[in-house]
Amino acid sequence: MIPPQRPIAIVAIIFPGMDQIDLTGPFAVLARLPNSSIRLVWKDREPIRDHLGLGLLPDATLAETGPVDLLLVPGGPGQEQLMEDEEVLAFLRDMGESATCVYSVCTGSMICGAAGMLKGKSATTHWTALRLLKYFGATPSTDRVVIDGKYVSAAGLTSGIDGALRVAALLRGEEVAQSIQLAIQYAPDPPYACGEPEIAPPEILANVLTQTSELTARREATAQRIGAKLGIAVS
Amino acid sequence: MIPPQRPIAIVAIIFPGMDQIDLTGPFAVLARLPNSSIRLVWKDREPIRDHLGLGLLPDATLAETGPVDLLLVPGGPGQEQLMEDEEVLAFLRDMGESATCVYSVCTGSMICGAAGMLKGKSATTHWTALRLLKYFGATPSTDRVVIDGKYVSAAGLTSGIDGALRVAALLRGEEVAQSIQLAIQYAPDPPYACGEPEIAPPEILANVLTQTSELTARREATAQRIGAKLGIAVS
Repeated sequence: MIPPQRPIAIVAIIFPGMDQIDLTGPFAVLARLPNSSIRLVWKDREPIRDHLGLGLLPDATLAETGPVDLLLVPGGPGQEQLMEDEEVLAFLRDMGESATCVYSVCTGSMICGAAGMLKGKSATTHWTALRLLKYFGATPSTDRVVIDGKYVSAAGLTSGIDGALRVAALLRGEEVAQSIQLAIQYAPDPPYACGEPEIAPPEILANVLTQTSELTARREATAQRIGAKLGIAVS
Repeated sequence: MIPPQRPIAIVAIIFPGMDQIDLTGPFAVLARLPNSSIRLVWKDREPIRDHLGLGLLPDATLAETGPVDLLLVPGGPGQEQLMEDEEVLAFLRDMGESATCVYSVCTGSMICGAAGMLKGKSATTHWTALRLLKYFGATPSTDRVVIDGKYVSAAGLTSGIDGALRVAALLRGEEVAQSIQLAIQYAPDPPYACGEPEIAPPEILANVLTQTSELTARREATAQRIGAKLGIAVS
């Protein structure tokens, strides 16, 4: 926990082709932390579009961003480009080093992995990408939220809300996290029991695997290449 | 259901002081509907800020927006201003009339109510505002998602995801909705059992009621005034 009187500076990186809910789910929780500020940052201040077209406005540039307490790294298809973007990777390493907590959502873990931040850590990511974490020296976990030291990761997209509530509890205590959960009326009631590959009906799983196969294959090639560059041996 | 070969035009109104998750939660679901388009609209194309500071970019103006299949109306504190904004209310009535489905999230219901769209309907909204629906001639329901004819409403904030999956099933069928639920890995695992006032620990409920009391009182006064203007008798 961070003492209540000490402000918490939160920074989230946003980028073209991200998946907005990886950011906006956690934002709904973390922006409600008492005595905190949250800023979205990118290379410049031009609006970015997520991969489904939602336009988000950066609050500051990477260069303008000083040390932070909590670094939030969302994912989405655009993560691939970031994995080989030295400016971004250096920024994340830099911010991550002095942060109290680094929180990655979905394939945000892949970006952190490419930055070398996951070596020897347990982590999770979207279920279609989970086995790729090994290329970055991380141990993949099927838990929805994984906490390994100061590194917190959440699985795919909507899991960012679950993870953010855990992060809120780590930073400001359980009473604050519970009050936020009630304020955002988070008593989820999914219409189907199919939100994980293990429980989804086979034809639904087959559907989604077909829809994502091209992206998954490309992601694997990129992850493999970057892992080799990082000098990580994959068994 | 809308035939798969018929495109679905989705429009979401965004506005200053909204709560972004009322929009972005449903966006993560609805933007994945096959053969569909989704646009965020506001009076002009300048970015707006949600009440916690997130910057969102409109795709088009209200004036540029033609008939839609699905109209999405998010809420948040800025809803109060919209409730007396004749330009916005006329836009919503107009779009709503020809739409196949009108979907309001959180206090988005209050805006639809002020537009006279909820008279005689069952609906829900954020738990702190639920009893205010009566001022608009609606029957408040404690269900997380309420479907009354073509009018769908979801409770507070994060319930927008649950409601959007229901809307997805209405428009494109259950198999599509299930595939989307798996793609966004929606198998929620909230850390606490406190996302509804009925189940929250008393001290947590007291916390949130205190934090929101001023807003709730102001909302009630506005709702009462507008209800009277609409000529609705409240028992």
